[in-house]
Amino acid sequence: AEPLSGVVDRFGGVTVTLGPEDAADVGSLEVRLRASLATWRGAGRCAAWVRVPRQAYSALPTVLAQGFDWHHAKAASQAGPENPEGYALLARWLAEDEPSRIPAYANTQVGVGGLVLNREDSVLLIKERVSPSAKIHGLWKLPGGLADRGEDLGTAAAREVLEETGVHATAEGVVCIHHRHGYAHGVSDLYFTVKMRAQSVELAAQASEVMEATWMPLEEAQRSPEVMPFNRRILMLASKPVLVPHSGLHGSSIAPRPFFVYASAASLDSATGKPSGCDGA
Amino acid sequence: AEPLSGVVDRFGGVTVTLGPEDAADVGSLEVRLRASLATWRGAGRCAAWVRVPRQAYSALPTVLAQGFDWHHAKAASQAGPENPEGYALLARWLAEDEPSRIPAYANTQVGVGGLVLNREDSVLLIKERVSPSAKIHGLWKLPGGLADRGEDLGTAAAREVLEETGVHATAEGVVCIHHRHGYAHGVSDLYFTVKMRAQSVELAAQASEVMEATWMPLEEAQRSPEVMPFNRRILMLASKPVLVPHSGLHGSSIAPRPFFVYASAASLDSATGKPSGCDGA
Repeated sequence: AEPLSGVVDRFGGVTVTLGPEDAADVGSLEVRLRASLATWRGAGRCAAWVRVPRQAYSALPTVLAQGFDWHHAKAASQAGPENPEGYALLARWLAEDEPSRIPAYANTQVGVGGLVLNREDSVLLIKERVSPSAKIHGLWKLPGGLADRGEDLGTAAAREVLEETGVHATAEGVVCIHHRHGYAHGVSDLYFTVKMRAQSVELAAQASEVMEATWMPLEEAQRSPEVMPFNRRILMLASKPVLVPHSGLHGSSIAPRPFFVYASAASLDSATGKPSGCDGA
Repeated sequence: AEPLSGVVDRFGGVTVTLGPEDAADVGSLEVRLRASLATWRGAGRCAAWVRVPRQAYSALPTVLAQGFDWHHAKAASQAGPENPEGYALLARWLAEDEPSRIPAYANTQVGVGGLVLNREDSVLLIKERVSPSAKIHGLWKLPGGLADRGEDLGTAAAREVLEETGVHATAEGVVCIHHRHGYAHGVSDLYFTVKMRAQSVELAAQASEVMEATWMPLEEAQRSPEVMPFNRRILMLASKPVLVPHSGLHGSSIAPRPFFVYASAASLDSATGKPSGCDGA
C-alpha cells in the first residue's frame, strides 16, 4: 500500500490532511495509514498528525482506531480561514522510547470585568438575571464576561460594559487578576478586572441578561452587603495595583475552590487585615 | 422512534451521552437523533449537546451529519476522570430565531517566564537548542514555558526554571503580562513574567532543550546585544510593576504582530523613552 503523503515540521513530526477521497474508501485508508506509520517510524519521525476537515469526517473512526487521539476539534464558528467548515486534528506519538512531547491544546478561558468609575467616583454595577448560585443571586456585581477569540482585554471590557449597561467606557489598566482552575470541561480561568473611566453615564440595561444597572458611590459599594463579597474585595483594590500573589478560597455552591489573586500587597492588607483575605462569595 | 434520553441544564439545553450500544447501530441512532431533535424543539430547548466517549467514536460521523458541530475534543491524556479514555463534545443550537449562545471553548494558552535574581542581582538566562527563528537563535533569554493544565503561575515558573537550569527559585510576584493572538491553531497567548528569588545557584542545564545556562549581572543583561531584545525590555521592568496597558509590535520571522503589555508606565518610559516601546525581536 502507498503511504499517505505528509508534511514534515521542524520538530520532527509529520502531518497528513485527509480529503473526501480518503473518507469515501475507509478500508483503503486504514491500509495506507498502517503503511504510513511503519514508513514514518522507519524515517525516525517522532509524531504523526492527521487533520480531518468536515468533508472527511466519516474517516474519523478509522483514524481513531489506529492509535490516534484528539489534539483538538473546532466548529465552523471557531475555525479560521484554512478550515472554514471546522475540523478535527488528531495526533499520535511515535517515539516509543521517549515520553510524548505533543503539546497540549489551549485550556484557559479569559474573562474580564469592568471597574468603571464616573466623575463623581461612583462605580457601575449590575444585577444578573441568571446567577451561578442562589446565594449570590440578586446582589450587585461588576459588569463583564468572556473575551472573544483574539480580543484584547481593554476591548473586551469595553464591549461587555457597553452591551450590559449601555455605558461607554475607556480602559485605563488592570486592577487585579484572578487565576482559578476546574471550570466547565476542566478548563482554567484567568479573570482580569480592568479599571475604566466612563465616557457616558446613561444606563440602558441589556434586557435578556441584566436585571438592573446602577451607579453606586465607590465607598458605599466597598461596604454594602448588597454587593457580592468577592466584588467588594476587588473594589478595595481600585487605587494602585502592584502585582503580588495572594492565595485565597473562593466559595461556591459545591465546595470552596483555592485560587490566586495578583494585586497590591498594601491594598489587600488594608482592605482585609490579612494577606490571604481575598475569599468571598 | 424513541427519543434519546438527555439531561436538561439551567440554561435550557439538553445533553445526551452516547454509549457503545448507540455506536453499534448507527442507523437506529440516526432515526432516534432525528426524533429527539423534534422533541427537544417542541419542548422549547435552545441547545442540544452530544457527549461521545471513546467507546462510541464510531457514532461520530452520524452525529456530525445531523447538524451538530464540535464544541471540543480531548485526548485521554487531557481528559478528566469522567472520561478517562478521552471524548468529543458536540453541540447544536436549536432556537432558530435567536443567535447561538453556545459558549466557545477555552482558546488561550498560558506561558510563564522566570525572572530569577540571585543575591548579587545577577539574572538567570538560557540559550535554547531550538529557537522559533534563526534571528534569535543563540541569544540569551529567560527560562520558561507553558503552564500545565491546572497549574498556578508561580508553580509553573518554578517548575520550568528548575527543569531547564537546575536552579531552585521562589516566586515573588508578576512583573508584566503579554497578551498576543494568532498562535498555532489560532489560539491566543498570555505570557506572565514572574519575578523570582534564587534558592540555589548551581547550574545544570537540561541537555535536550537547553544549550547553556548562565548568571549575568542584571545591569549588563539589560544592555547586552547577546540577550534577546524582547527579554531586555522585560528586564528593564524588574523594579516596581504597576499595570498599565501599552501596545507594541512583536517582530517575528513572518510578520510583526501587535500585542499589549501590562506593566509600569514609569519603567517603560524610562527604559525606552516612549510609551509603546515594548517591541523587540
